Amino acid sequence: MKTIAIIGTGTVGQTFASKLITLGYEVIMGTRNVSDKLASTVKDKYGNPPFSQWFAANKRVKIGTFAEAATSGEIIINASEGTNSINALTLADAKNLSGKIIIDVANPLDFSRGMPPCLVPELSNTNSLGEEIQKTFPDAYVVKTLNTMWCGLMINPNMIGGGDHTNYICGNDANAKATVIALMNEFGWRNENILDLGDITAARGMEAILPIWLRIWSTTQNGAFNFKIVS
Amino acid sequence: MKTIAIIGTGTVGQTFASKLITLGYEVIMGTRNVSDKLASTVKDKYGNPPFSQWFAANKRVKIGTFAEAATSGEIIINASEGTNSINALTLADAKNLSGKIIIDVANPLDFSRGMPPCLVPELSNTNSLGEEIQKTFPDAYVVKTLNTMWCGLMINPNMIGGGDHTNYICGNDANAKATVIALMNEFGWRNENILDLGDITAARGMEAILPIWLRIWSTTQNGAFNFKIVS
Repeated sequence: MKTIAIIGTGTVGQTFASKLITLGYEVIMGTRNVSDKLASTVKDKYGNPPFSQWFAANKRVKIGTFAEAATSGEIIINASEGTNSINALTLADAKNLSGKIIIDVANPLDFSRGMPPCLVPELSNTNSLGEEIQKTFPDAYVVKTLNTMWCGLMINPNMIGGGDHTNYICGNDANAKATVIALMNEFGWRNENILDLGDITAARGMEAILPIWLRIWSTTQNGAFNFKIVS
Repeated sequence: MKTIAIIGTGTVGQTFASKLITLGYEVIMGTRNVSDKLASTVKDKYGNPPFSQWFAANKRVKIGTFAEAATSGEIIINASEGTNSINALTLADAKNLSGKIIIDVANPLDFSRGMPPCLVPELSNTNSLGEEIQKTFPDAYVVKTLNTMWCGLMINPNMIGGGDHTNYICGNDANAKATVIALMNEFGWRNENILDLGDITAARGMEAILPIWLRIWSTTQNGAFNFKIVS
């Protein structure tokens, strides 16, 4: 049975963990400090319940440090906050990521300048978080995907429009992308709705969708939407 | 009969001009130097024929300086290159724009760093071309729309998917947006496919679609596509 490590314990990480367990995977979530995380009773900045509450209800999920998770995981999902991803993966340790696929679903949102967040300037326009992770961990296979939608849709595309909407994927390694696509097929994504945009530099465009995504969400008050390419 | 001024003589401007003539509008296109523009036999940077060739075949379209066009136009369409828009509109002269609607369909693409273009750093992320135009010409009513697609679709949405795909609009003035929506209805846009994202700051997200647009275009080699919101 394949073990998948999830870096980050927020809503996105929880959503992947729950889904992967139902699909029969072993899941270990990585966090900075396990005892602090389990002891915390603080809601996250979106008002979601503390991690410990979710964790108590999802007993098959394991938790460890970033490094313990990365060591156990055969595939790594980066579901950490974009501003913290390089740091979290550095704590996971490059040697534990070497030769492994990192599925990067994070976005470099910068909340420091007020709401709505903008993108982190040095991780946008002529760079991206996906590229930065690949540059920082050259021995890992970074695959960017699923970052352009609400996490509920990432693992359940059939929730809307019969699943007929577009998910992008990019990365430098074709085999890594094929492995990730197979996993997404298990989530319900059909191949005709997955568009391979080439190498990891496509992450620039994929992450740049966030500003319009956030604006649509604030306008419609509905996050359960995605974009479909019409041609 | 209403006169519409088009700032910029490139493919986007030509596309609007031809369509508006068929709809019965008077059209005047603005350029920096009329005699230079009409004398030029140089193809544009996309390989399109020189303006003079198109102009000779579209005899009902008038041409003038930026200021002459803005003076005559009751509505102004900014179809200039994004890096040149503030300059072109400054030459059009604020007093000729005052109290008028500027439909901004341009994008601040920066070709100076190689292909594909990125966005102009100072006109992206925490700013946008749409906002910059509104700040520079506070007495005009800037409405950003149609910038997220190929110009052929801007004026003919029914070319694909029965016209059922999404066009965004934003701007600070509700009446100005209503006027622009009525014009887009004449192009074939149905109201249910036009999403009002609020004030002009939504231009940030709308212009940030360009990086993914360009990447999809280079991947599929087809520019006749648009995005539809599925929910």
